Amino acid sequence: MPPRLCLSRCALLVLLGCSVSAFAQTEEDAQPKPPTAAEALAHSPPEHWRQVPADRLVYLELDSGRVVIELAPEFAPKHVEQVLSLIADSYFDGLAVLRSQDNYVAQWGDPLADDAEAARSRGEAAERLVAEFDQASEAVGPFTALPDGDIYAPEAGFIRGFPAARDPRSGRSWLAHCYGMLGAGRDESPDSGSAAQLYVVTGHAPRHLDRNVTLLGRVLEGMPALSILPRGDGALGFYIPAQKRPAIRRMVLASALPEAEQIAFEVMRTESASFARWVEARRFRREAWFAHPAGRIEVCNVSVPTRRIEAADH
Amino acid sequence: MPPRLCLSRCALLVLLGCSVSAFAQTEEDAQPKPPTAAEALAHSPPEHWRQVPADRLVYLELDSGRVVIELAPEFAPKHVEQVLSLIADSYFDGLAVLRSQDNYVAQWGDPLADDAEAARSRGEAAERLVAEFDQASEAVGPFTALPDGDIYAPEAGFIRGFPAARDPRSGRSWLAHCYGMLGAGRDESPDSGSAAQLYVVTGHAPRHLDRNVTLLGRVLEGMPALSILPRGDGALGFYIPAQKRPAIRRMVLASALPEAEQIAFEVMRTESASFARWVEARRFRREAWFAHPAGRIEVCNVSVPTRRIEAADH
Repeated sequence: MPPRLCLSRCALLVLLGCSVSAFAQTEEDAQPKPPTAAEALAHSPPEHWRQVPADRLVYLELDSGRVVIELAPEFAPKHVEQVLSLIADSYFDGLAVLRSQDNYVAQWGDPLADDAEAARSRGEAAERLVAEFDQASEAVGPFTALPDGDIYAPEAGFIRGFPAARDPRSGRSWLAHCYGMLGAGRDESPDSGSAAQLYVVTGHAPRHLDRNVTLLGRVLEGMPALSILPRGDGALGFYIPAQKRPAIRRMVLASALPEAEQIAFEVMRTESASFARWVEARRFRREAWFAHPAGRIEVCNVSVPTRRIEAADH
Repeated sequence: MPPRLCLSRCALLVLLGCSVSAFAQTEEDAQPKPPTAAEALAHSPPEHWRQVPADRLVYLELDSGRVVIELAPEFAPKHVEQVLSLIADSYFDGLAVLRSQDNYVAQWGDPLADDAEAARSRGEAAERLVAEFDQASEAVGPFTALPDGDIYAPEAGFIRGFPAARDPRSGRSWLAHCYGMLGAGRDESPDSGSAAQLYVVTGHAPRHLDRNVTLLGRVLEGMPALSILPRGDGALGFYIPAQKRPAIRRMVLASALPEAEQIAFEVMRTESASFARWVEARRFRREAWFAHPAGRIEVCNVSVPTRRIEAADH
């Protein structure tokens, strides 16, 4: 490997599962060593992974590529139900990305939604949905807390593979606006979202949006199809002129496709021992490149291990 | 404004300086109201801004657009000196972006740097530079601390308009790996960087890189020219085949250009009262859209106000 091209390869081995045999000589060497990220992955048994059900797996297809999304009905049951209904009606097919704002979000829907005569029919879908900003903690699943705190919430961590936050005092939990999270746009009233206009976070986590917009899923693969879209020239990244809007080929549910067209994914169980090791590997980077391993991590920097299931496996 | 397109416009008014006259009715209404971001900008007197010296202002020009960078010699004097020397030698002109890794960095330099015969000459530039990961706090300028803490450092805030962190115990300060920060790639040895290969953060802040790589500047304008680059197909986003590498037209210093070609910028002084108001406006979003203003903020979500100086002004 040419050394100068290695420059940041070394920094990133951890992301790619390469193993490095030399360790930083630091005071932490006296402690039992945490695994590297590669080791945490390599030693994870199958039961520490869960397959994403095909009826929660959505493919958003653009000219720039395919985005694979896992829906999170435990956090936003009404929004997920409505998105599934819209998808079943092929509502999004042929619509467009309306805005791409740098370091923020890409958002898609019907450009003519506000023109009663020209707007695409939303079929049985409700006009407005009650906000699903947070849920009772006992209803959403086991919470794996991170040890280093959070700026925006009393606790941050993971629930069912999704980055989340929790307030023990109120007993409420909510999804966190990390890179790749899927949300439902709304107007000024909290209950004005309809899940007919969706966005994905494409920049640094805008955590100030937590509990202000309903989040309903997470991108598992294919972020570049959204993140490399040209930014819109209008305010807030809206595309002007309209011809610049990237088209949505289709937005489909995996389970509605012939089996041969389905791509199956599994996500590491965030309540597993393997995930605990993964988090430790990300907190304390043991690879030789690191002069000052942080020893700490913030929720949106963890990234939950996700992988395709090879066809032979399912 | 069509209401459904407004969905996230409302969330973002604050970023664009639009004013909103209705405020969220919350318990905070009993307190003196912080300004909106628009008000913080509108009421900032000229002395709360500083013009970026033209000999610290760099234009990186790609087919995808122009990236304007402010160098930070207080934090990385040797690296900045070396970059200025390389730029003066037109070293980067005609080289290429070597990698674009999604949610991480775009990195550029000489694709042939490791081929002694084919590599571009670096002239007087040193082969290796001593790492400049941090500096004595008293040497880098006044520190404006944020009130809500930081996951990665004892204190986080701003110094001279740059996101930074500080350890009062060690008396050291360092730049923070936020979106848009400029760094110098290196090999495994901390002192192996040469500033001939540079990167910009194009994703969620990889704060675990703080004090592991030398940061030497910040993008003031033009991030999309880097952030929309296609991601490389190779490991870590390296472009394969080589033909896919985006070309660098040139990397020039503003002060070396004819005055008519210079674009002048000013940055809000982060030690000013206007910046304190800006931070408050970002911590507590008073705009009506927000159902739950966070009341807190993390360093990489602040974004320091930066603006072009109109030609008539200078």
